[in-house]
Order: sequence, then structure tokens, then C-alpha cells
Amino acid sequence: MPGPLVVQKYGGSSLADADRIRRVARRIARERAGAAELVIVVSAMGDTTDELLALAGAITDEPDARELDVLLATGEHQSATLLSMALHALGVPAISLTGAQAGITTDGRYGKARIAGVEPRRIRAELDAGKVVIVAGFQGLRGGSDTTAVALAARLHADRCQIFTDVRGIFTADPRLEPTARQLPLIGYEEMLELAHQGAQVMQTRAVELGWVNGVVIEVLSSFEDAPGTVIAEDPLVEQRNKVRGLAHDRNVAKVTLVDVPDRPGVARSVFEPLAEAGIIVDMIVQNVGHGGATDLSFTVPRADLGRAKRILEPILRTLGFRELTTDSAIAKISIVGAGIQNAPGYAARMFGALADAGINIEMISTSEIRITCLIAEDQVDAAVRALHAAFELERPDEMGEGAGAVGAAS
Amino acid sequence: MPGPLVVQKYGGSSLADADRIRRVARRIARERAGAAELVIVVSAMGDTTDELLALAGAITDEPDARELDVLLATGEHQSATLLSMALHALGVPAISLTGAQAGITTDGRYGKARIAGVEPRRIRAELDAGKVVIVAGFQGLRGGSDTTAVALAARLHADRCQIFTDVRGIFTADPRLEPTARQLPLIGYEEMLELAHQGAQVMQTRAVELGWVNGVVIEVLSSFEDAPGTVIAEDPLVEQRNKVRGLAHDRNVAKVTLVDVPDRPGVARSVFEPLAEAGIIVDMIVQNVGHGGATDLSFTVPRADLGRAKRILEPILRTLGFRELTTDSAIAKISIVGAGIQNAPGYAARMFGALADAGINIEMISTSEIRITCLIAEDQVDAAVRALHAAFELERPDEMGEGAGAVGAAS
Repeated sequence: MPGPLVVQKYGGSSLADADRIRRVARRIARERAGAAELVIVVSAMGDTTDELLALAGAITDEPDARELDVLLATGEHQSATLLSMALHALGVPAISLTGAQAGITTDGRYGKARIAGVEPRRIRAELDAGKVVIVAGFQGLRGGSDTTAVALAARLHADRCQIFTDVRGIFTADPRLEPTARQLPLIGYEEMLELAHQGAQVMQTRAVELGWVNGVVIEVLSSFEDAPGTVIAEDPLVEQRNKVRGLAHDRNVAKVTLVDVPDRPGVARSVFEPLAEAGIIVDMIVQNVGHGGATDLSFTVPRADLGRAKRILEPILRTLGFRELTTDSAIAKISIVGAGIQNAPGYAARMFGALADAGINIEMISTSEIRITCLIAEDQVDAAVRALHAAFELERPDEMGEGAGAVGAAS
Repeated sequence: MPGPLVVQKYGGSSLADADRIRRVARRIARERAGAAELVIVVSAMGDTTDELLALAGAITDEPDARELDVLLATGEHQSATLLSMALHALGVPAISLTGAQAGITTDGRYGKARIAGVEPRRIRAELDAGKVVIVAGFQGLRGGSDTTAVALAARLHADRCQIFTDVRGIFTADPRLEPTARQLPLIGYEEMLELAHQGAQVMQTRAVELGWVNGVVIEVLSSFEDAPGTVIAEDPLVEQRNKVRGLAHDRNVAKVTLVDVPDRPGVARSVFEPLAEAGIIVDMIVQNVGHGGATDLSFTVPRADLGRAKRILEPILRTLGFRELTTDSAIAKISIVGAGIQNAPGYAARMFGALADAGINIEMISTSEIRITCLIAEDQVDAAVRALHAAFELERPDEMGEGAGAVGAAS
């Protein structure tokens, strides 16, 4: 009878050079000595993807999407073959497979494809032949390796899906900003999704969604040390916790304000439809109710899209009759996330109070069932993280038994 | 009715950076404007293959052959996608295909695979859809892009197979060594094969063989200038030419001498069998007939294999009872090639005389039907090339009508 089936994903920083690849190979060899069946998903080495993008950019400003996908996929093929060679050198049978060879099909939308299905026959056959199976992680989706790993874990009914990265797990706040930030042993899917959406860079949101839908137990952990990570799973205690679980901040944001927008039907559509068509994601939206038949409309976009957003909106400015368009790139989002937030209005008041006490002005506010986000000046992010971490006592372990036996055993 | 079908192959130096890739794209766009159907075979950019080999070498001394093939293939995938992007940018519809997508199957011997077959349905469909088809050239064979191009030309019944490289064609000698060296408008397959075997680096020998067997008219030409190249085809006048057509030299060679080998049956097998098993190609072999029951046995190997050859032979030294093993890396081969050589013994005498007059000692000699090769000191290669070029009057055009209309029209 075979051992547990484990899917592991290693990110680009874990595979940045030959030494690190050999280190990952030694870790895999140890794991396999414990009789586990292993499917490994790899990202491209270090900066490979950026280098390939630069090369494509030197050829043409608008690379064909299909060709760009094939180009970027070569980065993952390279790290997959190199890891396989390193395992062979340790006497561990291994084989590298492209996404297609591994039976992964996508919906064919180049540049933003989603995994459409996984036919795991080939992977199963290679595992049965005693091999470690290494799958190139990129599936026509920038940074889609986490999603590949979770999709394979779901389809193969893996016992675990481990995401190896350069941090030890999910923390109550960015530990570089808040020294008392505490690693969470366990976090629920929904809370993780909000944290990821709001700027915690550790995992791709699509991967968390897919894990949630399929009930895949995910563990985020460091490839550079031997320490338990954070398990992302159904949190049986989530309803009772009723507590802020963590903070997230996001500096990759810019604010656009349309001043004196005429207050008539259809205006919002005229603004947001062309942005959506250009693939620009609009996040927070605030409309100040009218002063003399006109309003101010503010919203946020990813900072890298600000230039494009301006180029799209400025020609519409006159047609729609608004006065001017102002922008601000020196801003950031700060969020508190926790399953209990919706049912306890006190959290919003405590958040706004803590920010006010720290002298931090709130420019915009948005909320979800389990999250409150404030837009603040970028140079106040550090102060905001410290103020909120203290206000919600995040340095204190959860007395409801974080990392409870039942879930801890899955990691 | 479609225009002519042309297969073009571009080597790594023609695709070394973004500028060169765009230059190649412009050339293809011009060709296509002339209504030709185009299948393009590409090598990896510049030094990519060497860089990938170095990366694999940093992981392990003996990379798994299958994984190494997959790794190296990523180099050709990259240049194929980049060239396709460059064509798209010029408004030329194009698609890059891997070897497998292009329907090319190999015999699966990783590291030295041969093309087993070509099923051109996909290529045909893409051509019919009006696209330039770009095929990644590496097929599990180091430097196999020439062979890929010729195999595709054969299977697609292409009108031409053009090999674009960094030289203008086939010359009577290396023009860097002999300023009066003349470009040949036409050369027969068999003569080209001997030139390639004997060190003319312009084309891969396997590609010439495949062209010969399938009657593919090949043209070697420069991607850096607009000038006619050299056509490799059946030479209808070859029997009448009866003349040395060109010189080749090869510095990638080392000599091994086994001193005082016992003169008894089976000794040669004991020496050459283990070398063959190690994949070391032994070229020239000379055995000096005995002096007192023992002989000296000399042969040449590629210079890079000399260390391995020594390691293999030294343990056998005592068992076989030969006295010592000496080696010499400072040697080179110089060859004259021409279809008439076999029937005209005067050529050998003229070659040896010209070398003697130039003060060049001949260490070993080997011959084929259309070639005579001498082993000489490496530092005398330049002098030998000049002496032989003059002795055989290679600077003078062939009065039998080189580049005769019938063949010239094929280029």
C-alpha cells in the first residue's frame, strides 16, 4: 500500500539557482524516504519570467498572447527538468512533465487562462512506476503555479498540498513592519481569501478559491527552514472566534477622482465600462453625494494601470461634462480581516479610532462580510499596521486553541 | 494556387538578440510578400544552449539524458515564439510549433535521437490558414536544426530548403585563412558530406545525408546580407569535373599512440570496443607494421574526448602488455575533397608535395573515394591551407560552368 500522496509547489525564489534546486531536491528525497507519493509543481527560476517578458518587450510592444504564453512556459520547463536532474543525481527516480503532458487543460484564454480540467492518467502511471512527478506550473496564467498545485491536489485526492515559499506562513501582519506579528497555525479559506485579495502576497487568490471549493487542505511553509507553516482549511471554530485574525496592506494602488461629475443616470457606466473592457480592475468606489447636481467619483486601480486608465478616461472627460480628473499614487490600503467582523459593529469603530489616535487620515472605506479596508497615505502604512496590530491585540495567541489537533494533524 | 513552398532554417547567430530576430522577421515578411508558403526552422538564440548546458552542469555531472533534451529544447521554443511575435508585429500571421506539435517523431534515443518520421498535417493546416509556420529546430539532437529543416523540406515536397547562417556559403577553403578562397555556387551532396565530415562547420552532416537520400535541393546562405549562397544538389557534371573542389581543416582532434602493442589477434578490438561503448568516435587509424613482434597503434579522437579516452585505456595498458600511451593535442586534419580524386593518383602526390615544399610534416594519412586527409601539426594549418589552395588552383573558377543555369534556377 502506497504512502500518502502529497502535492508540493516550489516558487521561483526556492529554485533561484543550482544550489537552491539541489536543496529542494534533498528535501524531496527525504520526504520520499518516508514513503510518500510526490507530485511537485514548480515555478520558473528566480527572475526568469521577468527576463523573458523583457525579451518579448524588446521584440514588440504588444506580443501575441498565445506566443507569450508559450515563451513564458519555457521558464517552468527549465526549472522542472533541472529539479528532475537533481533528483536523478540523488538516485531518486523522477520525470518532468509539461502541463499538457500532465493532462492539464485550460480554457485557452491566453494570458489569463483558467484550468479547465485535469486528466491525471499520466501522472498516476508515473507515480505507480515509482517516480516523483514534476509538473511545470505555468498554465497560461501569470503566476499560476499555486493554482496548478491545488487543482492537481484536488483531482488526485492528495492528502496534502504544500506551498513552499520564502516566508514561513501566514502572519497576523507583515512581520517586516510589525515585530510582534504572530504566525497563524490555521486560517479559514474565506479569511485567507480576503487577506490575499487585500495585499498579502503569500498565495494566489484563485488557488485559495479552488482549495475552498474542493476542500483541499493547503499548507504554506518556507523552503528555507524546517518549521511548520500555516494550514489553510475549513476552520471549525470560525464562528466562535469572532475576532480579527490578521491585517493586510497593499501599496499597489492608485486613486482616481473625477471632479464634478454630472449627477445623472448612466454616468457610472460610461466611466467603468471602458475600464473593464481594457481589463483594468477597479476596486474601491466612493461617490460623494451631490453638491449642486454634480458629485465627485473616486475609485482605486492597480498602480501599474493608472497611466492606461488616464488615457482611457481623459477623452471621455468633456463628453460626460465632468470638470477634471485628479490622481494620487501615494496611497495604500490597510485591511482588518476576521470572520466575526460583520456581526460585531464595534470592530469598525475600533479600527477608525486606532487610526485616528495614530494621526492617520482615512480617505476611503470599503467593507465585506469579513473585512474592513481603509485607504490611507502610503507613508503611513507602517504606523497603521502597528496601531491596528496593537488595537486588536494580534500579538496574543488565540485562546480558542489555534492549530487544534484535528487540523494540525493534516499538516 | 499557392506560391512555392520554402523551408528556411535560421541558426543561433542569426537570432542572437531582439534586433537580429526582427531583421529575420523582415526578411521572412519580404519573402512572403512574394506569395511563398514558408516553414521556418529555428535554433536557440546565440549562446542559449551553452548556458543551459552550464546550468545542468551546475546541478549534476551526469544529467539525465531525457531531462537534458527537454531542457535544451526550451531554447528553441523561446526563439520560435519570439520570431513569431516579431512577425505578428509586422502584420504577418504566424504560429510557433514545438517539434511534437509539428508532427515530428524521433527514435527516442535521448541526446542523439534521429528523426523517425514527419506527419505534416498540422503544418499543412496552418499553411492553408495563411500562416508562416515556425518550428523549434531541436529534436533531441545537439544542433539538429539543419536536419529538422531538410526532413521537413523532404516530407512537404518543398521547392527549396534554405539554411541561413553567418557565412555566405561553401568556400574552397576557410576565407579567414585563405584570402583568395572562392565561394562555390554549387557542390554535390557527396563532396559536401566529405567537407562537413572533415571540419567544414557550415552544415550538419546528417542533414546533408538526408538531403542526398531525398533529393532535397539545399541552399546555404547568409542571413546578414542579400547574396546568393551555395546550392547543395546533385551535380550533373561531377564526373567530368575531376578536380579538387575544396579544402577542409579540423582542429578539434587529438592523437593517441599506443607504443609497442603486442602483434596478436584481438588487440585492436580490446582497444576500440571500450571506446565505442563510451561513444567516442575514432577517426584515423594507423598501425606501424611490427618491429620484433610489437607495433605502434595510432588513432585520432575528438579533442574533448581525449581525457575520457585516456581514462578508459590506461587500465587496459598492462593487461594487453603495451608499453606506454602517448597523446598529442597540438595537431589538426587538413583535407582535399573532390569527386575525381579516386581515379587520379596524381592528386595524392601533388598534395604531399605541396605540404613538403611548405615544410609541413605529415603524421598520418587517410583517404576515401573523394578525399585525402593528412594529420599535421596544428600550428601549420594556416600554411597548409595556403599551400594546398595554390597547388590545386582553387582560386580559379571552374571552367565547366559552375552555377549552371539548370541548378542555379533552383536557388
